[in-house]
Amino acid sequence: MIVTCVYIYVKPEFIEEFKQATMLNHLGTIKEPGNVRFDFLQQDDQPDCFLLYEVFKDEEAVAAHKQTKHYLTWRETVNDMMAQKRKGVRHSLIAPTDPDLW
Amino acid sequence: MIVTCVYIYVKPEFIEEFKQATMLNHLGTIKEPGNVRFDFLQQDDQPDCFLLYEVFKDEEAVAAHKQTKHYLTWRETVNDMMAQKRKGVRHSLIAPTDPDLW
Repeated sequence: MIVTCVYIYVKPEFIEEFKQATMLNHLGTIKEPGNVRFDFLQQDDQPDCFLLYEVFKDEEAVAAHKQTKHYLTWRETVNDMMAQKRKGVRHSLIAPTDPDLW
Repeated sequence: MIVTCVYIYVKPEFIEEFKQATMLNHLGTIKEPGNVRFDFLQQDDQPDCFLLYEVFKDEEAVAAHKQTKHYLTWRETVNDMMAQKRKGVRHSLIAPTDPDLW
């Protein structure tokens, strides 16, 4: 299981457009067979900061995601909406390890 | 739905003890009726940095969690293991909103 937090700072004037574009990416991603979660969140005390909590089954699933049309379209669409380069932080899973809890 | 990311920096000599104590908190928390997720993660490029991805149904569930024995024990046990004060960042959920996806 591969868990990546992607932190994205959006220029204030693009917040609504960013939400729409990312929702399309969300809807596409959760249909991928190797995707486990793709939670889309907005930070309460900093509404221009968004978090994607992305969980994939394995490296192959991560690689497959990066070839999908919805990801590639999203990447191009939101590129100029970001106030700074987005940051992906990878994690190792400690718990839960039971597949039924994912 | 309330999503909080808790970032915890642990003194290197306490990493294993911290993992054990936090696992007990994880096992207790996922049994709470108001808990949705309590993912326990270790950052790949910075193994002294841990993330708790905590999702509760509502404010009442968050408040109830903070009264549980497993949380209070954890808080006291790990207090001196932290290299700095832990930071909880609250988020609003944009997606998924379908309860079946949680």
